[in-house]
Amino acid sequence: MSTCTPATTLDFDTTSPAAVRAAIRSGAHLGFTNHLARGFVQGNLMIVPQAQAEDFATYCALNPRALPVLGRSRPGEPFIPELGADLDLRTDVGGYTVFRDGEPVDTPRSIAELWRDDLVAFVLGCSFSFEGVLQRHGVRLRHLDEGNVSAMYVTSVPTAEAGPFGGPLVVSMRALRARDAIRAITISQHYPMFHGEPVHIGTPALIGIDDLADSYGGHGLKELHPDELPVFWACGATAQLAARRARLPLCITHHKAHMVVTDLPVRP
Amino acid sequence: MSTCTPATTLDFDTTSPAAVRAAIRSGAHLGFTNHLARGFVQGNLMIVPQAQAEDFATYCALNPRALPVLGRSRPGEPFIPELGADLDLRTDVGGYTVFRDGEPVDTPRSIAELWRDDLVAFVLGCSFSFEGVLQRHGVRLRHLDEGNVSAMYVTSVPTAEAGPFGGPLVVSMRALRARDAIRAITISQHYPMFHGEPVHIGTPALIGIDDLADSYGGHGLKELHPDELPVFWACGATAQLAARRARLPLCITHHKAHMVVTDLPVRP
Repeated sequence: MSTCTPATTLDFDTTSPAAVRAAIRSGAHLGFTNHLARGFVQGNLMIVPQAQAEDFATYCALNPRALPVLGRSRPGEPFIPELGADLDLRTDVGGYTVFRDGEPVDTPRSIAELWRDDLVAFVLGCSFSFEGVLQRHGVRLRHLDEGNVSAMYVTSVPTAEAGPFGGPLVVSMRALRARDAIRAITISQHYPMFHGEPVHIGTPALIGIDDLADSYGGHGLKELHPDELPVFWACGATAQLAARRARLPLCITHHKAHMVVTDLPVRP
Repeated sequence: MSTCTPATTLDFDTTSPAAVRAAIRSGAHLGFTNHLARGFVQGNLMIVPQAQAEDFATYCALNPRALPVLGRSRPGEPFIPELGADLDLRTDVGGYTVFRDGEPVDTPRSIAELWRDDLVAFVLGCSFSFEGVLQRHGVRLRHLDEGNVSAMYVTSVPTAEAGPFGGPLVVSMRALRARDAIRAITISQHYPMFHGEPVHIGTPALIGIDDLADSYGGHGLKELHPDELPVFWACGATAQLAARRARLPLCITHHKAHMVVTDLPVRP
């Protein structure tokens, strides 16, 4: 499996979501999705058993900045037609992580054989969706220039609990020059379904991040240049961490930066 | 003269602009204006001879972030009725600084005896106008809590030149906690006539400010708490510095934080 290489297989920005999904489904594209289908919404995938689905929906509703719900499947259906007519959540995400009792046990490229009649899929907003908007407004996203993704961090900020779900807020970090940070804040506030404006800027320790080098999952751009500020947005990975803490018997998520690519256009 | 004491004579926030102007005119109020008539626009005063007025107007137009023009008088008239029916710019500003050939020569409380038939008054937007809006949105402005004003700094950022006018951008600085900084950015962008969103956040040296203790004019809140970021907005004092550099034979401005209090409501 080589799902962690930067996206180079497909054209930057102009590929249609259906073409991206087809390339992923066929195995032609193996990389991150953040460079792809830039004008369209991407989302976090969270699949939980029906027994935990209502508590999870409540958890999302209580923490809308981190967990804006873009779509939810009916129990047993691996489809959310509102997000993509041909979208099959079992095969169209570039990588999955399977958790059992809170522990990661596999990272397959398809979950067709794991699908069950009692599973419910949620797709949650992702900050990848506004990165194209930021770039069109002249914001330099160095992690994209370097073929990387934004790093994620576990903070000391608690989320509101629901049933077995709770725990700390996870954030994504972008290293931005001051003018770009200001511009990114003014733009991202208009996209509440992709986490809205940042939750923090500047000193990481103030939100419980002791070392930028120690990112959640270990990947992403983690070093700041002297003229850059770390800017932190609430992140959908908050849900993954909550599901792990809840020790769900089964939980399936997208793997790292391999997101659900939807047909929803990003409002300019 | 005691024009530099914090405002305590009048009630916080609820005084009408006409009442503030009457109190200033009669000598009942001697302090800064930033605490007063909080729902109404305040402005910088710049009075220049007619011979330099067109160049100055062009300078403002070329640098709208720092120098948004709220009003301009006809030559020889010390009134701008659009900003206040009873406003008399010779007596209704709490303090004036008189510059001759670029040097400050006096700080009178009235300029009635200095007024000439060839003088033109400009009133320029001031960030005091949005401070009330920020507070209503829950942003803590510590300088106001401490009875102070925001500090100003001369930067290394050049302005666009017009005739004899040019020189560095002057900024105002507010010490804000990260969440308040983010909120202040998202709010102030909606007020372009009061300088809009900040021009810088974080490391002062990146815009040529070597020492926060060394503020323009020496006053204002200059020390940061460990959990605060310095946030910098373009400032109307840019005009004062440009007029000094231009060595105008005569130029009269408001003195420090004694602004023109207008009848224009601040849009919520």
